[in-house]
Amino acid sequence: MATESKPFEWRIRVYYEDTDAQGVVYYANYFRYMERARTEWLRALGVDQAELLNVQRRMFVVTATRAEFLAPARFSDEIVVTASLAGLSRATFEIEQNIFLPGHNDKLLVRGNITAAFLNADNLRPLRVPADIFEENS
Amino acid sequence: MATESKPFEWRIRVYYEDTDAQGVVYYANYFRYMERARTEWLRALGVDQAELLNVQRRMFVVTATRAEFLAPARFSDEIVVTASLAGLSRATFEIEQNIFLPGHNDKLLVRGNITAAFLNADNLRPLRVPADIFEENS
Amino acid sequence: MATESKPFEWRIRVYYEDTDAQGVVYYANYFRYMERARTEWLRALGVDQAELLNVQRRMFVVTATRAEFLAPARFSDEIVVTASLAGLSRATFEIEQNIFLPGHNDKLLVRGNITAAFLNADNLRPLRVPADIFEENS
Amino acid sequence: MATESKPFEWRIRVYYEDTDAQGVVYYANYFRYMERARTEWLRALGVDQAELLNVQRRMFVVTATRAEFLAPARFSDEIVVTASLAGLSRATFEIEQNIFLPGHNDKLLVRGNITAAFLNADNLRPLRVPADIFEENS
Repeated sequence: MATESKPFEWRIRVYYEDTDAQGVVYYANYFRYMERARTEWLRALGVDQAELLNVQRRMFVVTATRAEFLAPARFSDEIVVTASLAGLSRATFEIEQNIFLPGHNDKLLVRGNITAAFLNADNLRPLRVPADIFEENS
Repeated sequence: MATESKPFEWRIRVYYEDTDAQGVVYYANYFRYMERARTEWLRALGVDQAELLNVQRRMFVVTATRAEFLAPARFSDEIVVTASLAGLSRATFEIEQNIFLPGHNDKLLVRGNITAAFLNADNLRPLRVPADIFEENS
Repeated sequence: MATESKPFEWRIRVYYEDTDAQGVVYYANYFRYMERARTEWLRALGVDQAELLNVQRRMFVVTATRAEFLAPARFSDEIVVTASLAGLSRATFEIEQNIFLPGHNDKLLVRGNITAAFLNADNLRPLRVPADIFEENS
Repeated sequence: MATESKPFEWRIRVYYEDTDAQGVVYYANYFRYMERARTEWLRALGVDQAELLNVQRRMFVVTATRAEFLAPARFSDEIVVTASLAGLSRATFEIEQNIFLPGHNDKLLVRGNITAAFLNADNLRPLRVPADIFEENS
Protein backbone atom coordinates (compact mmCIF):
# COMPACT_ATOMS: atom_id res chain seq x y z
CA MET A 1 0.00 0.00 0.00
CA ALA A 2 1.37 3.34 -1.03
CA THR A 3 1.11 6.17 1.46
CA GLU A 4 -0.88 9.25 0.61
CA SER A 5 1.72 11.93 0.30
CA LYS A 6 -0.66 14.81 0.88
CA PRO A 7 -4.18 14.70 2.34
CA PHE A 8 -7.15 15.15 0.08
CA GLU A 9 -8.76 18.55 0.66
CA TRP A 10 -12.37 19.64 0.15
CA ARG A 11 -13.72 23.17 0.53
CA ILE A 12 -17.06 23.66 2.24
CA ARG A 13 -19.04 26.83 2.80
CA VAL A 14 -20.86 27.24 6.11
CA TYR A 15 -24.55 28.11 5.64
CA TYR A 16 -27.21 29.09 8.17
CA GLU A 17 -28.46 25.49 8.23
CA ASP A 18 -25.11 24.41 9.74
CA THR A 19 -25.07 26.88 12.61
CA ASP A 20 -27.03 27.01 15.84
CA ALA A 21 -28.21 29.64 18.30
CA GLN A 22 -24.73 29.72 19.86
CA GLY A 23 -23.72 31.48 16.63
CA VAL A 24 -21.31 28.79 15.45
CA VAL A 25 -21.47 25.48 13.57
CA TYR A 26 -23.45 22.88 15.53
CA TYR A 27 -20.98 20.21 16.68
CA ALA A 28 -22.67 17.23 14.98
CA ASN A 29 -22.50 19.01 11.63
CA TYR A 30 -18.70 18.74 11.52
CA PHE A 31 -19.32 15.02 11.03
CA ARG A 32 -21.45 15.85 7.99
CA TYR A 33 -18.61 17.93 6.63
CA MET A 34 -16.20 15.05 7.23
CA GLU A 35 -18.43 12.70 5.31
CA ARG A 36 -18.71 15.11 2.39
CA ALA A 37 -14.91 15.20 2.21
CA ARG A 38 -14.67 11.39 2.49
CA THR A 39 -17.24 11.01 -0.27
CA GLU A 40 -15.34 13.34 -2.55
CA TRP A 41 -12.05 11.66 -1.64
CA LEU A 42 -13.52 8.27 -2.53
CA ARG A 43 -14.88 9.75 -5.76
CA ALA A 44 -11.38 11.05 -6.55
CA LEU A 45 -10.07 7.53 -5.87
CA GLY A 46 -12.55 6.19 -8.41
CA VAL A 47 -15.25 4.91 -6.04
CA ASP A 48 -18.83 5.60 -7.11
CA GLN A 49 -20.73 5.04 -3.88
CA ALA A 50 -24.16 5.26 -5.53
CA GLU A 51 -23.27 2.47 -7.95
CA LEU A 52 -21.66 0.58 -5.07
CA LEU A 53 -24.88 0.76 -3.03
CA ASN A 54 -27.50 0.39 -5.74
CA VAL A 55 -25.82 -2.11 -8.06
CA GLN A 56 -23.23 -3.98 -6.01
CA ARG A 57 -25.22 -3.66 -2.73
CA ARG A 58 -22.11 -2.80 -0.78
CA MET A 59 -21.54 0.23 1.41
CA PHE A 60 -19.10 1.93 3.73
CA VAL A 61 -20.27 2.60 7.27
CA VAL A 62 -18.66 4.50 10.12
CA THR A 63 -18.00 2.21 13.07
CA ALA A 64 -16.18 4.63 15.35
CA THR A 65 -15.17 8.24 15.50
CA ARG A 66 -13.38 10.67 17.70
CA ALA A 67 -12.98 14.38 17.33
CA GLU A 68 -11.60 17.38 19.15
CA PHE A 69 -13.34 20.68 18.58
CA LEU A 70 -10.61 23.29 18.96
CA ALA A 71 -12.24 26.41 17.56
CA PRO A 72 -15.60 27.10 15.94
CA ALA A 73 -16.45 27.69 12.31
CA ARG A 74 -19.02 30.42 11.74
CA PHE A 75 -21.73 31.33 9.27
CA SER A 76 -20.28 32.20 5.87
CA ASP A 77 -16.80 30.78 6.63
CA GLU A 78 -15.23 28.76 3.86
CA ILE A 79 -13.43 25.90 5.51
CA VAL A 80 -11.29 23.01 4.30
CA VAL A 81 -11.82 19.39 5.32
CA THR A 82 -9.06 16.86 4.75
CA ALA A 83 -9.14 13.10 4.36
CA SER A 84 -6.18 10.73 4.43
CA LEU A 85 -5.78 7.07 5.13
CA ALA A 86 -4.38 6.53 8.63
CA GLY A 87 -4.74 2.76 8.95
CA LEU A 88 -6.02 -0.30 7.17
CA SER A 89 -6.89 -3.81 8.31
CA ARG A 90 -8.96 -6.61 6.79
CA ALA A 91 -12.16 -5.40 8.42
CA THR A 92 -11.77 -1.66 8.87
CA PHE A 93 -9.86 1.38 7.76
CA GLU A 94 -9.09 4.56 9.58
CA ILE A 95 -9.28 8.04 8.07
CA GLU A 96 -7.72 11.13 9.55
CA GLN A 97 -9.84 14.19 8.91
CA ASN A 98 -8.99 17.68 9.94
CA ILE A 99 -10.98 20.84 9.42
CA PHE A 100 -9.24 24.16 9.14
CA LEU A 101 -9.93 27.73 8.21
CA PRO A 102 -7.57 28.50 5.35
CA GLY A 103 -5.53 31.67 5.61
CA HIS A 104 -2.05 32.82 6.39
CA ASN A 105 -1.79 30.36 9.26
CA ASP A 106 -4.49 27.79 8.43
CA LYS A 107 -6.24 27.74 11.81
CA LEU A 108 -7.10 24.19 12.86
CA LEU A 109 -10.74 23.94 13.97
CA VAL A 110 -11.40 20.22 14.32
CA ARG A 111 -9.12 17.21 14.55
CA GLY A 112 -11.07 14.10 13.61
CA ASN A 113 -10.60 10.41 13.12
CA ILE A 114 -13.06 8.00 11.54
CA THR A 115 -13.03 4.22 11.48
CA ALA A 116 -15.08 2.70 8.70
CA ALA A 117 -16.05 -0.79 7.63
CA PHE A 118 -17.28 -2.21 4.35
CA LEU A 119 -20.63 -4.02 4.53
CA ASN A 120 -23.01 -6.06 2.50
CA ALA A 121 -25.96 -3.65 2.23
CA ASP A 122 -28.57 -6.40 2.34
CA ASN A 123 -27.54 -8.18 5.53
CA LEU A 124 -25.14 -5.61 7.06
CA ARG A 125 -22.43 -8.31 7.29
CA PRO A 126 -18.83 -7.06 7.18
CA LEU A 127 -16.79 -7.64 4.03
CA ARG A 128 -13.07 -7.42 3.48
CA VAL A 129 -12.07 -3.78 2.92
CA PRO A 130 -11.18 -3.28 -0.78
CA ALA A 131 -7.64 -2.09 -0.03
CA ASP A 132 -6.75 -1.53 -3.66
CA ILE A 133 -8.83 1.63 -3.85
CA PHE A 134 -6.34 3.30 -1.52
CA GLU A 135 -3.34 2.39 -3.62
CA GLU A 136 -1.64 5.16 -5.51
CA ASN A 137 -2.97 5.26 -9.06
CA SER A 138 0.05 6.06 -11.17
CA MET B 1 -65.22 9.96 5.30
CA ALA B 2 -65.74 11.29 8.77
CA THR B 3 -64.37 14.70 9.55
CA GLU B 4 -61.69 15.09 12.15
CA SER B 5 -63.42 16.97 14.92
CA LYS B 6 -60.21 18.19 16.55
CA PRO B 7 -56.72 18.25 15.06
CA PHE B 8 -54.13 15.80 16.28
CA GLU B 9 -51.51 17.55 18.42
CA TRP B 10 -47.88 16.64 19.02
CA ARG B 11 -45.49 18.40 21.42
CA ILE B 12 -41.93 19.02 20.30
CA ARG B 13 -39.04 20.53 22.19
CA VAL B 14 -36.67 22.86 20.32
CA TYR B 15 -33.02 21.85 20.72
CA TYR B 16 -29.82 23.58 19.63
CA GLU B 17 -29.72 21.37 16.52
CA ASP B 18 -32.94 23.01 15.31
CA THR B 19 -31.81 26.60 15.62
CA ASP B 20 -29.41 28.68 13.55
CA ALA B 21 -27.14 31.67 14.02
CA GLN B 22 -30.15 34.00 13.74
CA GLY B 23 -31.06 32.63 17.18
CA VAL B 24 -34.32 31.00 16.09
CA VAL B 25 -35.45 27.73 14.51
CA TYR B 26 -34.05 27.34 10.99
CA TYR B 27 -36.99 27.61 8.57
CA ALA B 28 -36.55 24.19 6.91
CA ASN B 29 -36.70 22.50 10.29
CA TYR B 30 -40.37 23.38 10.73
CA PHE B 31 -40.99 20.88 7.94
CA ARG B 32 -39.20 18.25 10.04
CA TYR B 33 -41.49 19.08 12.93
CA MET B 34 -44.51 18.78 10.66
CA GLU B 35 -43.40 15.37 9.54
CA ARG B 36 -42.89 14.20 13.11
CA ALA B 37 -46.46 15.23 13.87
CA ARG B 38 -47.78 13.54 10.71
CA THR B 39 -45.89 10.38 11.59
CA GLU B 40 -47.36 10.32 15.09
CA TRP B 41 -50.80 11.15 13.72
CA LEU B 42 -50.57 8.23 11.28
CA ARG B 43 -49.35 6.02 14.13
CA ALA B 44 -52.39 7.10 16.17
CA LEU B 45 -54.56 6.20 13.16
CA GLY B 46 -53.02 2.72 13.17
CA VAL B 47 -50.49 3.15 10.35
CA ASP B 48 -47.07 1.58 10.97
CA GLN B 49 -44.94 3.32 8.36
CA ALA B 50 -41.90 1.11 8.96
CA GLU B 51 -43.93 -2.03 8.27
CA LEU B 52 -45.56 -0.22 5.33
CA LEU B 53 -42.15 0.55 3.80
CA ASN B 54 -40.24 -2.59 4.66
CA VAL B 55 -42.90 -5.25 4.28
CA GLN B 56 -45.57 -3.81 1.98
CA ARG B 57 -43.10 -1.61 0.03
CA ARG B 58 -45.47 1.32 0.07
CA MET B 59 -44.78 4.82 1.33
CA PHE B 60 -46.21 8.27 1.72
CA VAL B 61 -44.36 11.10 0.04
CA VAL B 62 -44.87 14.85 0.14
CA THR B 63 -45.72 16.22 -3.29
CA ALA B 64 -46.36 19.84 -2.38
CA THR B 65 -46.22 22.14 0.58
CA ARG B 66 -46.83 25.69 1.52
CA ALA B 67 -46.17 27.46 4.78
CA GLU B 68 -46.29 30.89 6.32
CA PHE B 69 -43.76 31.64 9.03
CA LEU B 70 -45.50 34.12 11.32
CA ALA B 71 -43.26 34.14 14.38
CA PRO B 72 -40.15 32.20 15.33
CA ALA B 73 -39.72 29.36 17.79
CA ARG B 74 -36.59 29.57 19.90
CA PHE B 75 -34.14 27.25 21.62
CA SER B 76 -35.79 25.43 24.51
CA ASP B 77 -39.37 26.31 23.49
CA GLU B 78 -41.88 23.52 23.72
CA ILE B 79 -44.17 23.88 20.75
CA VAL B 80 -47.22 22.04 19.47
CA VAL B 81 -47.64 20.81 15.92
CA THR B 82 -51.08 19.86 14.65
CA ALA B 83 -52.19 17.56 11.86
CA SER B 84 -55.65 17.26 10.38
CA LEU B 85 -57.02 16.03 7.11
CA ALA B 86 -57.95 18.94 4.85
CA GLY B 87 -58.68 17.15 1.61
CA LEU B 88 -58.65 13.75 -0.01
CA SER B 89 -58.71 12.58 -3.60
CA ARG B 90 -57.82 9.29 -5.31
CA ALA B 91 -54.19 10.28 -5.77
CA THR B 92 -53.37 12.71 -2.98
CA PHE B 93 -54.45 13.96 0.40
CA GLU B 94 -53.94 17.30 2.01
CA ILE B 95 -52.98 17.85 5.62
CA GLU B 96 -53.29 21.09 7.49
CA GLN B 97 -50.49 21.55 9.98
CA ASN B 98 -50.10 24.45 12.31
CA ILE B 99 -47.37 25.09 14.82
CA PHE B 100 -48.08 27.13 17.91
CA LEU B 101 -46.51 28.03 21.21
CA PRO B 102 -48.96 26.84 23.84
CA GLY B 103 -49.89 29.33 26.54
CA HIS B 104 -52.72 31.56 27.55
CA ASN B 105 -53.24 32.65 23.96
CA ASP B 106 -51.58 29.85 21.96
CA LYS B 107 -49.42 32.01 19.72
CA LEU B 108 -49.49 30.74 16.12
CA LEU B 109 -45.97 30.43 14.71
CA VAL B 110 -46.39 28.57 11.44
CA ARG B 111 -49.39 27.86 9.24
CA GLY B 112 -48.62 24.90 7.01
CA ASN B 113 -50.24 22.74 4.41
CA ILE B 114 -48.88 19.50 3.01
CA THR B 115 -50.03 17.48 0.02
CA ALA B 116 -48.99 13.84 0.09
CA ALA B 117 -49.28 10.88 -2.23
CA PHE B 118 -49.04 7.15 -1.67
CA LEU B 119 -46.40 5.37 -3.73
CA ASN B 120 -45.06 1.97 -4.57
CA ALA B 121 -41.61 2.14 -2.94
CA ASP B 122 -39.96 0.02 -5.63
CA ASN B 123 -40.96 1.96 -8.73
CA LEU B 124 -42.23 5.23 -7.19
CA ARG B 125 -45.54 4.81 -9.06
CA PRO B 126 -48.59 6.43 -7.44
CA LEU B 127 -51.17 4.21 -5.76
CA ARG B 128 -54.70 4.99 -4.69
CA VAL B 129 -54.65 6.72 -1.29
CA PRO B 130 -55.93 4.29 1.39
CA ALA B 131 -58.78 6.58 2.46
CA ASP B 132 -60.02 4.21 5.13
CA ILE B 133 -57.17 5.10 7.46
CA PHE B 134 -58.64 8.57 7.85
CA GLU B 135 -62.07 7.31 8.78
CA GLU B 136 -63.15 7.72 12.35
CA ASN B 137 -62.33 4.55 14.27
CA SER B 138 -65.24 4.00 16.57
CA MET C 1 -35.78 47.68 -10.98
CA ALA C 2 -34.07 45.81 -13.76
CA THR C 3 -35.29 42.32 -14.47
CA GLU C 4 -32.96 39.40 -14.05
CA SER C 5 -32.49 38.12 -17.55
CA LYS C 6 -31.32 34.66 -16.53
CA PRO C 7 -31.73 32.98 -13.14
CA PHE C 8 -28.71 32.54 -10.91
CA GLU C 9 -27.66 28.87 -10.79
CA TRP C 10 -25.87 26.97 -8.05
CA ARG C 11 -24.67 23.34 -8.24
CA ILE C 12 -25.14 21.12 -5.22
CA ARG C 13 -24.06 17.54 -4.67
CA VAL C 14 -26.42 15.22 -2.80
CA TYR C 15 -24.70 13.44 0.11
CA TYR C 16 -25.92 10.68 2.42
CA GLU C 17 -26.84 13.30 5.03
CA ASP C 18 -29.46 14.70 2.64
CA THR C 19 -31.25 11.45 1.94
CA ASP C 20 -33.58 9.34 4.04
CA ALA C 21 -34.63 5.70 4.32
CA GLN C 22 -36.94 6.16 1.32
CA GLY C 23 -33.72 6.32 -0.70
CA VAL C 24 -34.20 9.90 -1.91
CA VAL C 25 -33.56 13.42 -0.63
CA TYR C 26 -35.66 14.17 2.47
CA TYR C 27 -38.24 16.78 1.48
CA ALA C 28 -37.25 19.44 4.03
CA ASN C 29 -33.68 19.38 2.74
CA TYR C 30 -34.70 20.91 -0.59
CA PHE C 31 -35.33 24.07 1.43
CA ARG C 32 -31.74 23.90 2.66
CA TYR C 33 -30.59 23.66 -0.93
CA MET C 34 -32.75 26.65 -1.85
CA GLU C 35 -31.20 28.68 0.90
CA ARG C 36 -27.67 27.76 -0.19
CA ALA C 37 -28.52 29.02 -3.67
CA ARG C 38 -30.10 32.20 -2.28
CA THR C 39 -27.04 32.81 -0.13
CA GLU C 40 -24.72 32.42 -3.09
CA TRP C 41 -26.99 34.55 -5.25
CA LEU C 42 -26.92 37.32 -2.63
CA ARG C 43 -23.15 36.94 -2.40
CA ALA C 44 -22.94 37.33 -6.19
CA LEU C 45 -25.08 40.47 -5.83
CA GLY C 46 -22.56 41.83 -3.35
CA VAL C 47 -24.40 41.04 -0.10
CA ASP C 48 -22.22 39.71 2.72
CA GLN C 49 -24.82 38.21 5.06
CA ALA C 50 -22.32 37.56 7.87
CA GLU C 51 -21.29 41.23 7.92
CA LEU C 52 -24.96 42.17 7.59
CA LEU C 53 -25.87 40.10 10.67
CA ASN C 54 -22.84 40.67 12.86
CA VAL C 55 -22.03 44.30 12.10
CA GLN C 56 -25.21 45.89 10.78
CA ARG C 57 -27.53 43.61 12.81
CA ARG C 58 -29.85 43.11 9.90
CA MET C 59 -30.96 39.83 8.40
CA PHE C 60 -33.15 38.25 5.77
CA VAL C 61 -35.81 35.82 6.96
CA VAL C 62 -38.19 33.59 5.08
CA THR C 63 -41.80 34.53 5.77
CA ALA C 64 -43.54 32.14 3.40
CA THR C 65 -42.75 29.36 1.02
CA ARG C 66 -44.41 26.99 -1.34
CA ALA C 67 -42.95 24.11 -3.27
CA GLU C 68 -43.98 21.28 -5.54
CA PHE C 69 -41.89 18.14 -5.40
CA LEU C 70 -42.12 16.67 -8.89
CA ALA C 71 -39.36 14.07 -8.88
CA PRO C 72 -36.76 13.03 -6.31
CA ALA C 73 -33.05 13.75 -6.22
CA ARG C 74 -30.93 10.81 -5.10
CA PHE C 75 -27.67 10.15 -3.30
CA SER C 76 -24.71 11.31 -5.39
CA ASP C 77 -26.79 13.35 -7.86
CA GLU C 78 -25.41 16.73 -8.77
CA ILE C 79 -28.33 19.08 -9.02
CA VAL C 80 -28.77 22.73 -9.90
CA VAL C 81 -30.75 25.20 -7.82
CA THR C 82 -31.84 28.50 -9.34
CA ALA C 83 -32.72 31.83 -7.76
CA SER C 84 -34.37 34.79 -9.43
CA LEU C 85 -36.35 37.75 -8.22
CA ALA C 86 -40.05 37.24 -8.82
CA GLY C 87 -41.50 40.16 -6.93
CA LEU C 88 -40.56 43.06 -4.71
CA SER C 89 -42.52 45.28 -2.35
CA ARG C 90 -41.52 47.59 0.49
CA ALA C 91 -41.72 44.84 3.08
CA THR C 92 -40.99 41.59 1.25
CA PHE C 93 -39.49 40.13 -1.87
CA GLU C 94 -40.29 36.92 -3.67
CA ILE C 95 -37.72 34.55 -5.10
CA GLU C 96 -38.45 31.84 -7.60
CA GLN C 97 -36.26 28.81 -7.03
CA ASN C 98 -36.27 25.70 -9.11
CA ILE C 99 -34.22 22.58 -8.69
CA PHE C 100 -33.34 20.46 -11.67
CA LEU C 101 -31.11 17.58 -12.63
CA PRO C 102 -28.91 18.89 -15.42
CA GLY C 103 -28.66 16.78 -18.55
CA HIS C 104 -29.88 16.67 -22.07
CA ASN C 105 -33.39 17.65 -20.96
CA ASP C 106 -32.77 19.25 -17.54
CA LYS C 107 -35.35 17.31 -15.54
CA LEU C 108 -37.25 19.60 -13.17
CA LEU C 109 -37.36 18.13 -9.65
CA VAL C 110 -38.72 20.93 -7.47
CA ARG C 111 -40.56 24.14 -8.24
CA GLY C 112 -40.21 26.51 -5.32
CA ASN C 113 -41.13 30.01 -4.29
CA ILE C 114 -39.84 31.88 -1.25
CA THR C 115 -41.04 35.12 0.27
CA ALA C 116 -38.48 36.87 2.43
CA ALA C 117 -38.41 39.95 4.61
CA PHE C 118 -35.59 42.10 5.92
CA LEU C 119 -35.45 42.45 9.70
CA ASN C 120 -33.64 44.23 12.46
CA ALA C 121 -31.81 41.30 14.08
CA ASP C 122 -32.12 42.74 17.60
CA ASN C 123 -35.86 43.26 17.79
CA LEU C 124 -37.05 41.26 14.74
CA ARG C 125 -38.87 44.34 13.43
CA PRO C 126 -39.35 44.54 9.64
CA LEU C 127 -37.24 47.01 7.67
CA ARG C 128 -37.67 48.28 4.15
CA VAL C 129 -36.23 45.76 1.69
CA PRO C 130 -32.98 47.18 0.23
CA ALA C 131 -34.21 47.02 -3.36
CA ASP C 132 -30.99 48.36 -4.83
CA ILE C 133 -29.20 45.04 -4.29
CA PHE C 134 -31.44 43.50 -6.94
CA GLU C 135 -30.70 46.14 -9.53
CA GLU C 136 -28.53 45.19 -12.45
CA ASN C 137 -24.95 46.15 -11.71
CA SER C 138 -23.61 47.46 -14.95
CA MET D 1 -19.45 15.44 44.43
CA ALA D 2 -21.97 12.68 44.74
CA THR D 3 -21.87 9.98 42.10
CA GLU D 4 -24.85 9.46 39.86
CA SER D 5 -26.18 6.12 40.90
CA LYS D 6 -28.15 5.51 37.74
CA PRO D 7 -27.75 7.22 34.38
CA PHE D 8 -30.37 9.67 33.21
CA GLU D 9 -32.43 8.17 30.36
CA TRP D 10 -34.26 9.90 27.53
CA ARG D 11 -36.49 8.21 24.93
CA ILE D 12 -36.23 9.33 21.32
CA ARG D 13 -38.24 8.23 18.31
CA VAL D 14 -36.41 7.81 15.00
CA TYR D 15 -38.10 9.73 12.16
CA TYR D 16 -37.40 9.77 8.43
CA GLU D 17 -35.35 12.95 8.88
CA ASP D 18 -32.83 10.99 10.97
CA THR D 19 -32.23 8.20 8.49
CA ASP D 20 -30.32 8.08 5.24
CA ALA D 21 -30.38 6.10 1.99
CA GLN D 22 -28.54 3.25 3.72
CA GLY D 23 -31.83 2.67 5.54
CA VAL D 24 -30.51 3.43 9.02
CA VAL D 25 -29.86 6.48 11.21
CA TYR D 26 -27.19 8.73 9.67
CA TYR D 27 -24.14 8.53 11.93
CA ALA D 28 -23.87 12.24 12.73
CA ASN D 29 -27.46 12.24 13.99
CA TYR D 30 -26.56 10.08 16.98
CA PHE D 31 -24.71 13.16 18.24
CA ARG D 32 -27.96 15.12 17.95
CA TYR D 33 -29.68 12.46 20.02
CA MET D 34 -26.91 12.64 22.61
CA GLU D 35 -27.33 16.37 22.89
CA ARG D 36 -31.09 16.07 23.32
CA ALA D 37 -30.46 13.68 26.22
CA ARG D 38 -27.81 15.99 27.72
CA THR D 39 -30.18 18.94 27.43
CA GLU D 40 -32.95 17.04 29.18
CA TRP D 41 -30.50 15.76 31.80
CA LEU D 42 -29.34 19.33 32.49
CA ARG D 43 -32.98 20.43 32.65
CA ALA D 44 -33.65 17.66 35.19
CA LEU D 45 -30.65 18.95 37.16
CA GLY D 46 -32.23 22.40 37.20
CA VAL D 47 -30.21 24.03 34.41
CA ASP D 48 -32.23 26.24 32.04
CA GLN D 49 -29.87 26.56 29.09
CA ALA D 50 -31.97 29.20 27.33
CA GLU D 51 -31.83 31.47 30.39
CA LEU D 52 -28.14 30.61 30.75
CA LEU D 53 -27.43 31.71 27.18
CA ASN D 54 -29.77 34.66 26.84
CA VAL D 55 -29.56 36.19 30.30
CA GLN D 56 -26.29 35.03 31.85
CA ARG D 57 -24.49 34.79 28.47
CA ARG D 58 -22.89 31.49 29.41
CA MET D 59 -23.06 28.25 27.49
CA PHE D 60 -21.88 24.67 27.40
CA VAL D 61 -19.92 23.58 24.36
CA VAL D 62 -18.63 20.19 23.29
CA THR D 63 -14.84 20.17 23.08
CA ALA D 64 -14.28 16.51 22.27
CA THR D 65 -16.22 13.38 21.55
CA ARG D 66 -15.74 9.76 20.77
CA ALA D 67 -18.26 7.15 19.82
CA GLU D 68 -18.49 3.57 18.70
CA PHE D 69 -21.37 2.66 16.43
CA LEU D 70 -22.14 -0.97 17.25
CA ALA D 71 -25.50 -1.51 15.59
CA PRO D 72 -27.85 0.78 13.68
CA ALA D 73 -31.13 2.33 14.78
CA ARG D 74 -33.81 2.34 12.11
CA PHE D 75 -36.81 4.39 11.06
CA SER D 76 -39.58 4.20 13.65
CA ASP D 77 -37.39 2.67 16.38
CA GLU D 78 -37.85 4.11 19.84
CA ILE D 79 -34.43 4.28 21.41
CA VAL D 80 -33.06 5.34 24.77
CA VAL D 81 -30.13 7.71 25.23
CA THR D 82 -28.38 7.89 28.57
CA ALA D 83 -26.31 10.62 30.19
CA SER D 84 -24.14 10.34 33.27
CA LEU D 85 -21.22 12.28 34.62
CA ALA D 86 -17.97 10.43 33.98
CA GLY D 87 -15.44 13.03 35.00
CA LEU D 88 -15.10 16.61 36.17
CA SER D 89 -12.24 19.07 36.28
CA ARG D 90 -12.04 22.85 36.63
CA ALA D 91 -12.27 23.40 32.90
CA THR D 92 -14.21 20.48 31.48
CA PHE D 93 -16.56 17.65 32.35
CA GLU D 94 -17.02 14.32 30.71
CA ILE D 95 -20.38 12.69 30.04
CA GLU D 96 -20.89 9.06 29.20
CA GLN D 97 -23.75 8.59 26.79
CA ASN D 98 -25.00 5.28 25.51
CA ILE D 99 -27.80 4.62 23.09
CA PHE D 100 -29.73 1.40 23.26
CA LEU D 101 -32.82 -0.22 21.85
CA PRO D 102 -34.95 -1.10 24.86
CA GLY D 103 -36.28 -4.63 25.04
CA HIS D 104 -35.69 -7.88 26.77
CA ASN D 105 -31.93 -7.51 26.35
CA ASP D 106 -31.52 -3.76 25.77
CA LYS D 107 -29.35 -3.93 22.67
CA LEU D 108 -26.52 -1.41 22.82
CA LEU D 109 -26.30 0.62 19.60
CA VAL D 110 -23.84 3.38 20.36
CA ARG D 111 -21.29 3.90 23.10
CA GLY D 112 -20.45 7.58 23.35
CA ASN D 113 -18.39 9.95 25.41
CA ILE D 114 -18.58 13.74 25.35
CA THR D 115 -16.23 16.30 26.87
CA ALA D 116 -17.78 19.70 27.42
CA ALA D 117 -16.59 23.06 28.64
CA PHE D 118 -18.41 26.07 30.02
CA LEU D 119 -17.86 29.32 28.13
CA ASN D 120 -18.60 32.99 28.24
CA ALA D 121 -20.94 33.32 25.24
CA ASP D 122 -19.67 36.77 24.30
CA ASN D 123 -15.95 36.10 24.03
CA LEU D 124 -15.92 32.25 24.00
CA ARG D 125 -13.48 32.26 26.94
CA PRO D 126 -13.58 29.20 29.23
CA LEU D 127 -15.14 29.55 32.67
CA ARG D 128 -14.90 27.27 35.66
CA VAL D 129 -17.37 24.41 35.32
CA PRO D 130 -20.25 24.94 37.78
CA ALA D 131 -19.70 21.62 39.55
CA ASP D 132 -22.57 22.10 41.97
CA ILE D 133 -25.16 21.34 39.29
CA PHE D 134 -23.94 17.75 39.25
CA GLU D 135 -24.28 17.30 42.98
CA GLU D 136 -27.09 15.14 44.22
CA ASN D 137 -30.06 17.34 45.06
CA SER D 138 -31.54 15.82 48.18
